[in-house]
Amino acid sequence: MTMPKERGTRRAGTHVTSVDVAALAGVSQAAVSRAFTPGAPIAAETRRRILDAARKLSYVPNSIASSLTTRRTNMFAVILGNMNNPFYVKLFKILLERLQSQGRQLLTFTVEPGANSDDALMRVLRYQVDGIILTSAQLSTRMTALCHDRGIPIVLLNRYIPGSDVSGVRCDNIGGGRLIAKAFLQAGARHFAVIKGDPRGSTSQDRLRGFAEQILEEGIARRNILELEGQSIYEGARLAVLRAFQGKGQPVPDAVFGINDTMAMGAMDALRGEMGLRVPEDVMVAGFDDIDEGAHWPYRLTTVRQPIEAMIDEALALLQPDAPGRPIEPGIDRTIPGELIWRDTIPRPKHG
Amino acid sequence: MTMPKERGTRRAGTHVTSVDVAALAGVSQAAVSRAFTPGAPIAAETRRRILDAARKLSYVPNSIASSLTTRRTNMFAVILGNMNNPFYVKLFKILLERLQSQGRQLLTFTVEPGANSDDALMRVLRYQVDGIILTSAQLSTRMTALCHDRGIPIVLLNRYIPGSDVSGVRCDNIGGGRLIAKAFLQAGARHFAVIKGDPRGSTSQDRLRGFAEQILEEGIARRNILELEGQSIYEGARLAVLRAFQGKGQPVPDAVFGINDTMAMGAMDALRGEMGLRVPEDVMVAGFDDIDEGAHWPYRLTTVRQPIEAMIDEALALLQPDAPGRPIEPGIDRTIPGELIWRDTIPRPKHG
Repeated sequence: MTMPKERGTRRAGTHVTSVDVAALAGVSQAAVSRAFTPGAPIAAETRRRILDAARKLSYVPNSIASSLTTRRTNMFAVILGNMNNPFYVKLFKILLERLQSQGRQLLTFTVEPGANSDDALMRVLRYQVDGIILTSAQLSTRMTALCHDRGIPIVLLNRYIPGSDVSGVRCDNIGGGRLIAKAFLQAGARHFAVIKGDPRGSTSQDRLRGFAEQILEEGIARRNILELEGQSIYEGARLAVLRAFQGKGQPVPDAVFGINDTMAMGAMDALRGEMGLRVPEDVMVAGFDDIDEGAHWPYRLTTVRQPIEAMIDEALALLQPDAPGRPIEPGIDRTIPGELIWRDTIPRPKHG
Repeated sequence: MTMPKERGTRRAGTHVTSVDVAALAGVSQAAVSRAFTPGAPIAAETRRRILDAARKLSYVPNSIASSLTTRRTNMFAVILGNMNNPFYVKLFKILLERLQSQGRQLLTFTVEPGANSDDALMRVLRYQVDGIILTSAQLSTRMTALCHDRGIPIVLLNRYIPGSDVSGVRCDNIGGGRLIAKAFLQAGARHFAVIKGDPRGSTSQDRLRGFAEQILEEGIARRNILELEGQSIYEGARLAVLRAFQGKGQPVPDAVFGINDTMAMGAMDALRGEMGLRVPEDVMVAGFDDIDEGAHWPYRLTTVRQPIEAMIDEALALLQPDAPGRPIEPGIDRTIPGELIWRDTIPRPKHG
C-alpha cells in the first residue's frame, strides 16, 4: 500500500478500510470493528494498537453505513424545552457528557417553552436514532405511537404525561413543593405568592400542588396563596412581581416561591432592585432546581436540589431498545426525591 | 391500501413510502421529495397538502438512506469548548435555533476547556455531516486535513488558529480589549488586574493584548497590569481575586478586567461579598461578551457585546461544501467589531 503524504495525512483517507487497519495492527477485521464499538469486549492494549493504526492510516469507521446492517447508530436525540432556564442547560450538559463518555452521540433539538414537540420529533425520525430524550412538555399520542412503531424508545426527563405510554423520570415535585412550604411556615410566613411556569407542564403544577397542600394542612386559607404567571423565565418572574406588588399594587406577601430558581432570582431582583426590599428580612424567597447561579453571592438562594445525575442514570436505563410491534404498555413514571438546600433567603430554623 | 389504526396511527408506519404519500396528496413523487428538502422550490399550499398526507400515513422520509445517494445529510456538528461559560451556551442556543429554522439538524459534542478537539472530531467523522462548527481552541493540522480530504468544511466560531487553513469568524477581540481599557482610563484608573482565560486560546490572548496596548500608549507602565489566571470560569476568577487581594495580599487595583463576563461576575462577587468593597466606588470592573446574567440587577456589568447573530451568519456562510481533493488554501479569518455596553461598573464619562 503506497501512502502519499501531505501534512502528515493520507490524501485518500476516505478509501482506507478496516482491512487495512487490521493488517497494520496485526489483528483480525473483527477486532477492528470491536475497537470502534462502545462497550465491545477487547483488551485495552489491543484497542490502543488498533486506534494507533487507524490514526496512522486516517481511517474513520462509517457509523451510518454500519447502521444499515446493525440497525444501531449509537446516536441519541434530545429535545430541549426551555434553553432560557439554566437548569435545562445544566441537565443537557451532564447528559451530553454522560453519553459522550459512553461513546454515544447526541442530536440536539429545541422547542419553544410550552410548544408541542411533534414537529421536532418528526424531524428526529428522519434520522436513525437509538433513543429519544424529551425535556419538553407537550407531545401527542400519535407521535409517541409513531416512535413505538419504529421501535425507538422515548423517555421524558423531568416530565410526565398522565395516562401516556411514555416512561419518564422526574424529581418528586409535590414533595419538593412541600419542603419549601414547610421552611416558609417554620419561619413564620402566613401570606404567600407562587410564581408559576408553563401552566400546561406537570412540573409547575405539581410543585404548586405540594406547596399549597402543605399550607392548607396548616389551617391557612387558600386565598393566602397568590398565583403569578412567570412563564418559566427570569424576566417573566421579575415583571410579574413588579406588576403585582410595585407602587399601588397588592401588599407584599411574607414569602415568594419561584417554581424554578431562575424565576426566584428574577423575583429577588425585582424585590431588592426596583422595590428596595430586603431578603429575607422583608420578604422570604425560595426556588427549585439548585442551579449554580442561585448559590452565588448576590442570591444565596434556598432551594430544592434536583438529583440530576440520578435522573439521567434512570432515564438512560429506561431507554432500552423497544421491540417493534410489541403491544403498547403504560409507561413507567419514576420519581426521585429532591433535597432542601438551606441558604440565606429563608431564616433558618433555630435548633436546641 | 388498508389502514388498520391504533391510537390514530398506522401500525406498519415504517413501510409507507413516498409513493403512498404522493398518491394520497395527488402529486408526483418528486414533489414529495421537494416537500421534505429544505429550501427546495415548492408552493406553500402543495407542501402543506403533502405534509398533511404524510402525517395521515405516518410517513417519515429517511434522511440517512437518501444521504447515501445525495451525499448530503442536512446534519451539522458543533464542538463546544466550555459549557460552563454562559456565553457559549447562548451561542449554541442561537446556532441551534438558526439551523433548525433552516431545516437542518445539529449533532452536539463538548470538550473540556483547553482540551484538544481531535477526539471529538474523529467521532464526528464517523457520521456523515455537511459541516462542522468548532468553538473550542485546540485542533491539530492532521485533523483539519482529514476533514478536508473528505470534503467536509470546518469553521471556527469565536476562535482562530494562526497559520491554519481553517476559516473562522470572531469578534474583534483586540479592539474590544482597547474599548475596555479606554473606559477604565477615562474614569481615572491607573492600576489594573486582568483575569485571563484559557492561556492557549486566541480569545483571551487578544483581549489582553488590545487592553495592554491601549494602556501602554497612555504612558502607563506594563507592571501596572497584574495578570491573574481565572480558567475561563466564574469560580476560577472568584478564587483568583481572593488569593491575590484578600487579607495580606497585594493592594486592590483601580480596575479589574474579566476577559469574559462570567469571570468578571466571579470577581465582583469576591470583591463585594468576601472583601466588602463597593463597585465601582472602590474598584471598577468590566467584562466581555454581554451575557444576559451580566445585565441583571446585582451586576449591571459594563462589557463589550459580541455580535453573536452576525458571527453565526458569517460562519454558516463560510460553511460551504468543500471539493474533496481541492488544494488546501489559507483559511479566511473574519473579525466583526464588538460594541461597548455602558452599565454601572465603571463611572460613566461626563458629557458637556
